[in-house]
Amino acid sequence: MSAGGRLVTIEGGEGAGKSTVMAAVQAALAATGREVVATREPGGTPAAEAIRALMLSPEHALVPEAELLLAFAARAQHVRERVLPALARGAIVLSDRFTDASFAYQGGGRGIDAARIAELERWAAGVRPDLTLLLDVGVGEGLARARGRGGAPDRIEREQETFFERVRATYLARAAAEPARFRVIDAGLPQAEVVAAVEAQVRAWLEAQAWT
Amino acid sequence: MSAGGRLVTIEGGEGAGKSTVMAAVQAALAATGREVVATREPGGTPAAEAIRALMLSPEHALVPEAELLLAFAARAQHVRERVLPALARGAIVLSDRFTDASFAYQGGGRGIDAARIAELERWAAGVRPDLTLLLDVGVGEGLARARGRGGAPDRIEREQETFFERVRATYLARAAAEPARFRVIDAGLPQAEVVAAVEAQVRAWLEAQAWT
Repeated sequence: MSAGGRLVTIEGGEGAGKSTVMAAVQAALAATGREVVATREPGGTPAAEAIRALMLSPEHALVPEAELLLAFAARAQHVRERVLPALARGAIVLSDRFTDASFAYQGGGRGIDAARIAELERWAAGVRPDLTLLLDVGVGEGLARARGRGGAPDRIEREQETFFERVRATYLARAAAEPARFRVIDAGLPQAEVVAAVEAQVRAWLEAQAWT
Repeated sequence: MSAGGRLVTIEGGEGAGKSTVMAAVQAALAATGREVVATREPGGTPAAEAIRALMLSPEHALVPEAELLLAFAARAQHVRERVLPALARGAIVLSDRFTDASFAYQGGGRGIDAARIAELERWAAGVRPDLTLLLDVGVGEGLARARGRGGAPDRIEREQETFFERVRATYLARAAAEPARFRVIDAGLPQAEVVAAVEAQVRAWLEAQAWT
């Protein structure tokens, strides 16, 4: 529970359909009449977006530790500049990726010890999601979809399939460890069914909230 | 002691004369006949220099935690890409600023808990200097010199005098706590005397090294 407001995050690997689902979730949250702040990570503020651009540029071969620290530098800025003020005024913050992505990509994907990431989560992020929607899709299918979108892949999108298998496994393990916070949605279904499933989960969660 | 080679760092506040001293120290180290790698922080590799540019740009008002994490992201990249390989081949690495600067600027200056910085030092840097030359000068005099150089001040150079007083006090406290590693040089003396004092310290230190 985050002071006054709520923090809802959408997570998932490449081609899981996060962008489509974001709009549907945003509409479902807005139906409560509460302020909804839609944002993303890495990014969400001008400084954090600049860090994102540096982190994802294929120009630099970053070591895993630098990649993780950049992700948390962007997050520290995003949380303090945008997320905490919104939560304090009672808004629902909806973020396209958050700290779970660091555990999945830099932990599972790059092999950094989860305890180190958890330590950064405690002081550099300092806030945890109230609800996390995990869009789960097979790695092969997700990559095929992501590559079908066209556009140049960023530095992380250029990774091998085995990297994304570790990312997916880490997301699923985190969801299994925290069932009260996570909802796992089968994102391999047709898009309309995915959206309907997400909307149902969000509505059920909203009904269970005791707003203060 | 750093595997094979040695890591020598030069620290000090604004206007302490680090640039002038760097050249003299580099020459004194090179007189050993060993390879000397001169570098700087934040920076020292293309990716780390890009992080430096973002960190020091007056464009973004970074929160202290983001500033610290950017400094260590740059350092993680610099250490792994440049410092450790040089030490492994037996070189002397001479860095204009290193981890002590994070304790002084983001710890003393910004007020971040030193234990958090020490934790990042352990895993994100992972290497400590063998010798640190601290150029100490009164804050008023240092700032007058730095401002006399002209050029637009970067984001950190725009701070107030009280910020730089905390930076200086932190540097001096670290030097007092680790006398075996630090040499404090009075950088308020005329430039020729500062250079001579630094050269004498470096030569004495070199004579005490048992090279393997």
